[in-house]
Amino acid sequence: MSAREIKPTFEFDQEIAASLKKARGSAGALHEYLGFKTVELGPGTMQCQFEVRDELLTPIGNMHGGVISAFCDHLLGTVCYPVIKKGQWAATTEFKINLTRPVTQGAVDGYANIVSLGRTQAVVRIDVHNEGRICAMAQGTVTIMAPR
Amino acid sequence: MSAREIKPTFEFDQEIAASLKKARGSAGALHEYLGFKTVELGPGTMQCQFEVRDELLTPIGNMHGGVISAFCDHLLGTVCYPVIKKGQWAATTEFKINLTRPVTQGAVDGYANIVSLGRTQAVVRIDVHNEGRICAMAQGTVTIMAPR
Amino acid sequence: MSAREIKPTFEFDQEIAASLKKARGSAGALHEYLGFKTVELGPGTMQCQFEVRDELLTPIGNMHGGVISAFCDHLLGTVCYPVIKKGQWAATTEFKINLTRPVTQGAVDGYANIVSLGRTQAVVRIDVHNEGRICAMAQGTVTIMAPR
Amino acid sequence: MSAREIKPTFEFDQEIAASLKKARGSAGALHEYLGFKTVELGPGTMQCQFEVRDELLTPIGNMHGGVISAFCDHLLGTVCYPVIKKGQWAATTEFKINLTRPVTQGAVDGYANIVSLGRTQAVVRIDVHNEGRICAMAQGTVTIMAPR
Repeated sequence: MSAREIKPTFEFDQEIAASLKKARGSAGALHEYLGFKTVELGPGTMQCQFEVRDELLTPIGNMHGGVISAFCDHLLGTVCYPVIKKGQWAATTEFKINLTRPVTQGAVDGYANIVSLGRTQAVVRIDVHNEGRICAMAQGTVTIMAPR
Repeated sequence: MSAREIKPTFEFDQEIAASLKKARGSAGALHEYLGFKTVELGPGTMQCQFEVRDELLTPIGNMHGGVISAFCDHLLGTVCYPVIKKGQWAATTEFKINLTRPVTQGAVDGYANIVSLGRTQAVVRIDVHNEGRICAMAQGTVTIMAPR
Repeated sequence: MSAREIKPTFEFDQEIAASLKKARGSAGALHEYLGFKTVELGPGTMQCQFEVRDELLTPIGNMHGGVISAFCDHLLGTVCYPVIKKGQWAATTEFKINLTRPVTQGAVDGYANIVSLGRTQAVVRIDVHNEGRICAMAQGTVTIMAPR
Repeated sequence: MSAREIKPTFEFDQEIAASLKKARGSAGALHEYLGFKTVELGPGTMQCQFEVRDELLTPIGNMHGGVISAFCDHLLGTVCYPVIKKGQWAATTEFKINLTRPVTQGAVDGYANIVSLGRTQAVVRIDVHNEGRICAMAQGTVTIMAPR
């Protein structure tokens, strides 16, 4: 942000963060198929990465926008787990994404950032990078629910 | 919509529509993996469908929100092809999605609807249904580009 | 929507609807300044209207996009009151708007439509018309809160 | 953003920036009514401010969400003028806003930030602050058009 930036502070659960970082298959088979990996988790931040491969391209050679949408959807909810109470759920209830550059190869990095955290809702922003340039950016709402 | 609804009218290319309906693998391997099928294409409308299967579920048994995001992303661009000029490209440049109900089984149907079509941009809305209820709704912008 | 449309049904409070229709100044002085009027309220639907006047134009003669944004923000929350429980609050927590045509004169009509209503959230869509054409469309989330 | 941030660089027109900073009434009477003032303009950044006053409150004492929407709509387009070519137009074609905290008094500051700038489109993010806390955040698309 320009000029002043207000950063919320978070209680950060190291244990949950560590387990999320290890648990590669924790989000199911789709996740494995797309190859999403957690690079780093901090208080209110998360970095994930995947490699573009032929299966994820459309016939004209661009990566399917749906992969980046799914990537953002994944980041939105997951970044919240280490900062919400144990047992609570984080469900992405809505998001908006701009897809600004076609992606054809290389690694794709997603950086999530919680910009607001209330009792029942978090607002999260995501920047997606590919080959040194920003290729997508998202903003969404995560609903935080009591343990079922 | 309530009361009055203004429907844009479209020049509809039957041939392109027919080829999109047949071309199941046309959007690449991801598409095949997710199992998206075109049910119907009309002037400014499109219906696609896929079946929920175990691979698309997260470990807690809900379908990954990323699948529905990818589904909407696919519908957004594709619904435009039969109504734009031959050779033009339709690229989803942004969209917003609300995920209102968890999906766990059955068929998922997406209904796309062009609500505005200009020379360089279309705005498209999508309703996603599962087991007789609406589970997601999206609104996005498709940029229409001259032939490369 | 194309093909099939799933319409939620609502318990509709005629009394609240009638009071909203009468209460022109109920949303404060900004409302009066912008001249928003309620035309019709139904179960899950609402139509509002205002007249474009010189004060709402930018120096180049187009209406300020902010007026339409404020118009949608108003419709989003208000359409919910007759269908939620007495004493509950409806607060717009987020929305997305596409502005597709400049508005320069005449009446502007907004049609709101609740597309999903849960215990704590509603999703609302809005079409904005001017001089027989659609000029904007929005989709947003309204959080429904227990009486304070 | 977490970890790495990619900042686009801009050609910045000091003259246009200076004229935008002076031109208080340039956006018309609505602008004057709402009291929006430009605090600062930099390459790809802009800060605006207004004071909450009784006329902008709803009868329950919260500021009308429409004011913040209009404020973001204003920032979205205006931040682009010093970095696009002389004579080009910047029109907000869509945006998404989260309203996370009610505003009741004091100054409201909006910080706009161009996160991506192409030949025909810019993507802009906005943070809105009130009394030391973030109260809204937006992300939108500005279409850049050739001189008419």
